[in-house]
Amino acid sequence: MRTKEQYIAGLNKLGRNLYYKGEKIGRDHEDLIPSVDVIGATFEAARNPEIEDLCTAVSHLTGDKINRFCHVHQDTNDLHKKQDMTRALCQRTGYCVGRCMGVDALNAINAVSYEADRGNKGETGYHGNFLKWLEYFQKNDLVGSCAQTDAKGERLKRPSKQIDPDAYLRVVEKKRDGIVVRGCKVHITFAAVADEILVLPTRALTPEEGDYAVAFAVPGDHEGVKQVVHPHNFRKRQRLARGFNWGAADSYVIFDDVLVPWERVFLCGEHQHGGICALLFALFHRHSYSGCKPAVGDILLGLASLVSEVNGIEKADHVREHLAELITIAELGYAAGYTASSLGKPELFIPGVGVRRYGPGSYIPNSIYANVGRCLTGDSVYHEQEILCKLAGGMPATFPFEQDLFNEDLKPLLDKYIRRNPNIPVEEQIKFWLFFTDFACSAAGAVFNYAGVHGGGSPIMEQIAITSQFDITSRKNIVKRLAGMKID
Amino acid sequence: MRTKEQYIAGLNKLGRNLYYKGEKIGRDHEDLIPSVDVIGATFEAARNPEIEDLCTAVSHLTGDKINRFCHVHQDTNDLHKKQDMTRALCQRTGYCVGRCMGVDALNAINAVSYEADRGNKGETGYHGNFLKWLEYFQKNDLVGSCAQTDAKGERLKRPSKQIDPDAYLRVVEKKRDGIVVRGCKVHITFAAVADEILVLPTRALTPEEGDYAVAFAVPGDHEGVKQVVHPHNFRKRQRLARGFNWGAADSYVIFDDVLVPWERVFLCGEHQHGGICALLFALFHRHSYSGCKPAVGDILLGLASLVSEVNGIEKADHVREHLAELITIAELGYAAGYTASSLGKPELFIPGVGVRRYGPGSYIPNSIYANVGRCLTGDSVYHEQEILCKLAGGMPATFPFEQDLFNEDLKPLLDKYIRRNPNIPVEEQIKFWLFFTDFACSAAGAVFNYAGVHGGGSPIMEQIAITSQFDITSRKNIVKRLAGMKID
Amino acid sequence: MRTKEQYIAGLNKLGRNLYYKGEKIGRDHEDLIPSVDVIGATFEAARNPEIEDLCTAVSHLTGDKINRFCHVHQDTNDLHKKQDMTRALCQRTGYCVGRCMGVDALNAINAVSYEADRGNKGETGYHGNFLKWLEYFQKNDLVGSCAQTDAKGERLKRPSKQIDPDAYLRVVEKKRDGIVVRGCKVHITFAAVADEILVLPTRALTPEEGDYAVAFAVPGDHEGVKQVVHPHNFRKRQRLARGFNWGAADSYVIFDDVLVPWERVFLCGEHQHGGICALLFALFHRHSYSGCKPAVGDILLGLASLVSEVNGIEKADHVREHLAELITIAELGYAAGYTASSLGKPELFIPGVGVRRYGPGSYIPNSIYANVGRCLTGDSVYHEQEILCKLAGGMPATFPFEQDLFNEDLKPLLDKYIRRNPNIPVEEQIKFWLFFTDFACSAAGAVFNYAGVHGGGSPIMEQIAITSQFDITSRKNIVKRLAGMKID
Amino acid sequence: MRTKEQYIAGLNKLGRNLYYKGEKIGRDHEDLIPSVDVIGATFEAARNPEIEDLCTAVSHLTGDKINRFCHVHQDTNDLHKKQDMTRALCQRTGYCVGRCMGVDALNAINAVSYEADRGNKGETGYHGNFLKWLEYFQKNDLVGSCAQTDAKGERLKRPSKQIDPDAYLRVVEKKRDGIVVRGCKVHITFAAVADEILVLPTRALTPEEGDYAVAFAVPGDHEGVKQVVHPHNFRKRQRLARGFNWGAADSYVIFDDVLVPWERVFLCGEHQHGGICALLFALFHRHSYSGCKPAVGDILLGLASLVSEVNGIEKADHVREHLAELITIAELGYAAGYTASSLGKPELFIPGVGVRRYGPGSYIPNSIYANVGRCLTGDSVYHEQEILCKLAGGMPATFPFEQDLFNEDLKPLLDKYIRRNPNIPVEEQIKFWLFFTDFACSAAGAVFNYAGVHGGGSPIMEQIAITSQFDITSRKNIVKRLAGMKID
Repeated sequence: MRTKEQYIAGLNKLGRNLYYKGEKIGRDHEDLIPSVDVIGATFEAARNPEIEDLCTAVSHLTGDKINRFCHVHQDTNDLHKKQDMTRALCQRTGYCVGRCMGVDALNAINAVSYEADRGNKGETGYHGNFLKWLEYFQKNDLVGSCAQTDAKGERLKRPSKQIDPDAYLRVVEKKRDGIVVRGCKVHITFAAVADEILVLPTRALTPEEGDYAVAFAVPGDHEGVKQVVHPHNFRKRQRLARGFNWGAADSYVIFDDVLVPWERVFLCGEHQHGGICALLFALFHRHSYSGCKPAVGDILLGLASLVSEVNGIEKADHVREHLAELITIAELGYAAGYTASSLGKPELFIPGVGVRRYGPGSYIPNSIYANVGRCLTGDSVYHEQEILCKLAGGMPATFPFEQDLFNEDLKPLLDKYIRRNPNIPVEEQIKFWLFFTDFACSAAGAVFNYAGVHGGGSPIMEQIAITSQFDITSRKNIVKRLAGMKID
Repeated sequence: MRTKEQYIAGLNKLGRNLYYKGEKIGRDHEDLIPSVDVIGATFEAARNPEIEDLCTAVSHLTGDKINRFCHVHQDTNDLHKKQDMTRALCQRTGYCVGRCMGVDALNAINAVSYEADRGNKGETGYHGNFLKWLEYFQKNDLVGSCAQTDAKGERLKRPSKQIDPDAYLRVVEKKRDGIVVRGCKVHITFAAVADEILVLPTRALTPEEGDYAVAFAVPGDHEGVKQVVHPHNFRKRQRLARGFNWGAADSYVIFDDVLVPWERVFLCGEHQHGGICALLFALFHRHSYSGCKPAVGDILLGLASLVSEVNGIEKADHVREHLAELITIAELGYAAGYTASSLGKPELFIPGVGVRRYGPGSYIPNSIYANVGRCLTGDSVYHEQEILCKLAGGMPATFPFEQDLFNEDLKPLLDKYIRRNPNIPVEEQIKFWLFFTDFACSAAGAVFNYAGVHGGGSPIMEQIAITSQFDITSRKNIVKRLAGMKID
Repeated sequence: MRTKEQYIAGLNKLGRNLYYKGEKIGRDHEDLIPSVDVIGATFEAARNPEIEDLCTAVSHLTGDKINRFCHVHQDTNDLHKKQDMTRALCQRTGYCVGRCMGVDALNAINAVSYEADRGNKGETGYHGNFLKWLEYFQKNDLVGSCAQTDAKGERLKRPSKQIDPDAYLRVVEKKRDGIVVRGCKVHITFAAVADEILVLPTRALTPEEGDYAVAFAVPGDHEGVKQVVHPHNFRKRQRLARGFNWGAADSYVIFDDVLVPWERVFLCGEHQHGGICALLFALFHRHSYSGCKPAVGDILLGLASLVSEVNGIEKADHVREHLAELITIAELGYAAGYTASSLGKPELFIPGVGVRRYGPGSYIPNSIYANVGRCLTGDSVYHEQEILCKLAGGMPATFPFEQDLFNEDLKPLLDKYIRRNPNIPVEEQIKFWLFFTDFACSAAGAVFNYAGVHGGGSPIMEQIAITSQFDITSRKNIVKRLAGMKID
Repeated sequence: MRTKEQYIAGLNKLGRNLYYKGEKIGRDHEDLIPSVDVIGATFEAARNPEIEDLCTAVSHLTGDKINRFCHVHQDTNDLHKKQDMTRALCQRTGYCVGRCMGVDALNAINAVSYEADRGNKGETGYHGNFLKWLEYFQKNDLVGSCAQTDAKGERLKRPSKQIDPDAYLRVVEKKRDGIVVRGCKVHITFAAVADEILVLPTRALTPEEGDYAVAFAVPGDHEGVKQVVHPHNFRKRQRLARGFNWGAADSYVIFDDVLVPWERVFLCGEHQHGGICALLFALFHRHSYSGCKPAVGDILLGLASLVSEVNGIEKADHVREHLAELITIAELGYAAGYTASSLGKPELFIPGVGVRRYGPGSYIPNSIYANVGRCLTGDSVYHEQEILCKLAGGMPATFPFEQDLFNEDLKPLLDKYIRRNPNIPVEEQIKFWLFFTDFACSAAGAVFNYAGVHGGGSPIMEQIAITSQFDITSRKNIVKRLAGMKID
């Protein structure tokens, strides 16, 4: 397993294909440092005796100890540990830990490539390609990003009905040495600081849409790949350092007629498996949210209880009610993921078919519980912000800049007037408000509300997953029986 | 294990201490038949090969096969099965199955009587009394009710501050042959059709309030016990029978200076254990709700999907959204209970002390998860009704009476105008609407909304349990560390 | 103007066409008495000096003083008074006052019949027919009901696409002496105790659906009209009388090939005016809700504040929050109606055309404000019930029957244990809980939740009215201008 | 009346007492330009024939035509026009128009200074001072800011119980030539670009707290006044200019032992009038919100409908539902203000006294309606953002920077992949998304959510105002009468 430093050294060897504010930049750009530090924490954790048990696993390919973010889940215990690792790391970094995209994508492709080969009766070698790539990925302890969301064009039209056929990424040519793909994957968080980008489809596909059923992996700087980067960092600090300086960076990952060698192609043309791959990545990723959203909930709870303490209102009834709400959201999200882990199996719901064994035996979390949990936490994002706002009052909106806080004319006056709870030193109160403002009144915070709602699929997608997969008929039959109706 | 018929025969031997509409009635009164049938279903289930595995257990006292409603949970598997049994039986009867009060009370008293004896260094014999009573209870396969909620008088004043000291049930005299208790336990569902009533405290108590720290069991017709009964049944049917005719009956259980023999006393005077007993019963009972509320959710989902089908709107977008909401509420409630079961231990949170081993080794569900689940399902009751209302339209509010539906002048006209979905025979539609009306527009349905909110403790009580038991400090520390604050 | 007694005498002269529980009944049936008393209150109010100013008007036809429920609104002051009269009378009767259906229908037909004649260039005499009927109606101080909602069959199919063409009421024959109509209007509240039934269409119609564009008036017992009645009364009292014994009765009003003489026909075949008539009645009726819903809100507020006082929790913070919510809902509903009254004009939004002058000069409330108010109050119904439930606790669900409260064994015990607030005599507390139970845990209360959501059109209908009538384009243009976009 | 240019020239003459990022700055600092432009719009509007009728008034002091923001409301028509002016100007600038603070403060002080003199039986000359100042203010067409919110220290302790008595601004010395005040007013929006700062108390006061009952006016650069400024601007544009470049700036306004000459003192020591002054300013300001929040609602509606159009989903059912919600919130807020204007009187609710005539005859909006409207719009802020988020999808969170959009490598690719609705030129779509991002994913947008919730008093303050002022007793009596209870 690599160290954080080795990871950074690796990034710095990558070619210069990132664009930011009109310039090409290197992966050592200062606005990417927070993102690099976040991913870096996953390397540190794997060597930290306190949590290495959560953060490492034994490769089913090589028997080596590997970072859990490179692992294919072999049993329910792996699912539980992935959930708990995600929660633990997000608590440490302060928000999204970023490396889950890779592990979720590789678990999806692992199963889909196996089934596609099986469906093709051995005429394709997708799963072999994938396992070879996976061994390389595990051995080198690489960071994977997953590029799923397409540009999409007109959103109510399917890929084959778009005016621009490239609105969804597709194969435009098959060559002897590989396939040529064209398209743009958007909102790809942490792609700028990933070693490898895993690409897979974004939706169900029809038989005519085989060209969109493509999955593969390329290095982050692969020829023809351009990333337009949008970092989301908190305001820079000069005097009062944060404990961890979280940040993220999203990319538009443009595939401008990119050649992908065949040995890195894991699916190409099987429309039905393309749709399942989209669904399955979403499922694994919603399961990841059962780790990260409770961690964000932990932070929101800490903010809410501390802001009440700083304001001196911690004993008011409505504070208790709000804290209970925050805990309830976070722990219901966790419980849903826990149940999804416990009920995990090498099985999947296939639209139009039902639940059946799927993949080479690797474990898949229960879909209903993964979805109801994500649905709740996604739907609660703005309400959680509202709770913070109500408990905080106006402070985060107008809090003075660090430079003013230390201006010599102002410091004694601002210290005097900022002080609220007399039992907490004013400097601690100041550090608290600055951090609160990061979450509540910054552009990055606002962006992460969008991520909190839409990441892993918007609530409407989870509702579709839930209603299409849940056994509603059996509930109709319960009612028919109770009502004395004939059951058919 | 008894048959339903033996249970009924037992009830009919009890003395005549029920009051209903100003008269004394027997337990064979026709308005109690639905309640008897509901409890009766728990006897039938224990003999039904389909679900006997869920509904029976092996007594840790005798090694006999017993009804699970008489069982002390020995491991997490017992907790899982109790949750699943409750869901399965509520699906069959159509609402609350009623017998959970007894099993929850006996599990609470089992642990508390043990700890009280331990605290008293063996000077009391509560636990021995209890085990002897429990063996009798299990051998005779009795139905237990739990009388917890007191009359309470002025609700913001504690027991010892009330003008009338009997506002909470208390010991008024200790005699050689037993204790004399006075008070009134209210809203005691199914007490009228129970063999035994387990009594325990309703809240935390101060050292001055030892007289209120009392737990014991008496037969339902014990001398001096008067029950004022309020049955909640659906409208009687003459032609179109329901598949199961659900009903419940609540009692005011009045203890008018009742002598309880010492061998039936399980706690008497230990104020701290009294408070824990209240808390622990509530915990077990909230865990029961993780079985029954998902079952009610199953029925609501069946109603919602069928009403959409009958109305011919099942493909409208908002229907999908509403069905997803109903599933999400029910399955989050289930997942919370599942997690509480899995994380169950012979441990309890003691206010002011923290989590510690508690009781003789029997299993207690995790309190946080039991509470967050119950909180969600309690808070969703009226919203669920609103969903039904929106999907149904006005039909349930004005649906004709059965007698009109079969009146010969009206039948052809009403059949013509009631018919909606042409693919469902109109008689089936009629049976459906009559059943829907039971749930949506009846007094019993409205009463069960109150039970759904307040049963097992009102949402505000769960919020208090959650915020007082959750480790908020560790979340403050997460934030302090991230903010760069000093952690103390 | 008639007295209540004259109104009752009139009802008793009507023919026996009501069906109830399989029997034909007279309008003097005891289960209709509460409904008769409610309508009766509108006669008493018109003679009560305290509110006769609100409850009477001067006929624009005859100059006579008439009951305002028979009046065509002549200016914004009339709109304000109709709103305030409705609120005042609902406060007195305790819920819906019932006679608004008539005044809303006649105001709609007044305008539509005028415009239809104008569209027909004078070839029809609808408006003359209507004015003649109206003069008769005003002179005899009659009670009108409005039959709008059709049986509807498959709800996503329009009238002309139904398998049964009678799913919506229609003209099946035109004769020399009148038209023959067939169909069934459902959920027609207070039709059983009305003198006249005004019939009008329920939705927008296509050119092929002219037969469904029909409006007319018939006496409540007109030949061929059958009413299947469903009364909604509170539990009968024997000892503790209510101050006003509210009740309502809904009818399925079946038109079994009914001949309507031409002079009572106000629209027949003009499909576009049929749709406008449906819309316009709904608009007037939603304006009525800006009077009745605030009155129901007043009662809910009284219940909520009194239940807090009885429970002794009136100073708790969450009580204040809940009371504020109840006031906010009611007064926003009132303010919306007030604004709709103030901005009233002889103008209407015509789908596909925009706002234009409509009708003979009579006043129409502003549609946007009438709709947003109704939307809020409809969407709040179940939340209001939840507030009552949370404040009350379990009492209303299990409160003893009147007969038990006065049973001599039980009375001293129940008085003792029911007593909460020591400053309120227990008998007053008992009367309070019995009344609270009427609202919270009765079938009639549950039915009126359905009425509260769907009456005057379901929330989804109001949303359609709002989005189709609001000037969204101008708001797009505001954004385009601010964003620096080109405005077209 | 001044021009915008004269206003700017005036600002530039003010002394240098603004601190920003550790430096002293002038009022011509580039980060204040958006704020100056916003206030500038109020000068332009008064000369714009399209809306000058709304934006000007006739001074009751001089008979001159003045800017309405300097006017004392003389009748209900003035209240209506102030509401409509506010809505119109916020639509033009794109958010808060800023100058309402001044007009709301001067209307409050006008009434309070009059009543304080009356209470003092003419021994004080507050009202005369105020009128003289007002004439100067009107003649010079000055911009007023209102400094109300104090630093507050421990928030559950009143001013006289604070460890630091300066936690609330107070009089520390009375001199022959004036009073010396000390304290800090926080979150004072647009104070940095105002000519005059009106200071008044923030809460109810006890007799011991007379030093806190102080109201006065000082120029923005008055000696001893220091402003710590926090501008909230949208991201700077280089190529694609906004139509209006909105921004605001908040100040901590520190009064570091400031001498206020007696002729500028309008209240000094009268604790009861101090509390009323706080209440009355809040009332006028909540009435202002009935203008600005509907305007913000107009913009949100424009954003929501345009984003649906750009995304090509404008015909989906859930879009209609969300648009209806946005309209409902905005128009209920407007209707509440409209009703508050119509029912306005020279009367006020005095805590402990009830409603009575107040002030010299100037008009005060109805408090209940002003509060319920503000309560709704404040409580809806985060839900409105959630609606935008759901309709937009991830675009605003990761949208490329302007420099990337025009980078020559990227432009053709980004134009290709950003294009959604084929009927809107991609450059228009880009301008739209950039503007949407301003509102949805910027620090300034997040800050204005805080303003939207807490400005004019937090929702909890409105709830207190509502429940303390509403006639709840009469509603209890309605219920008592209906329930048959004795009414006392």
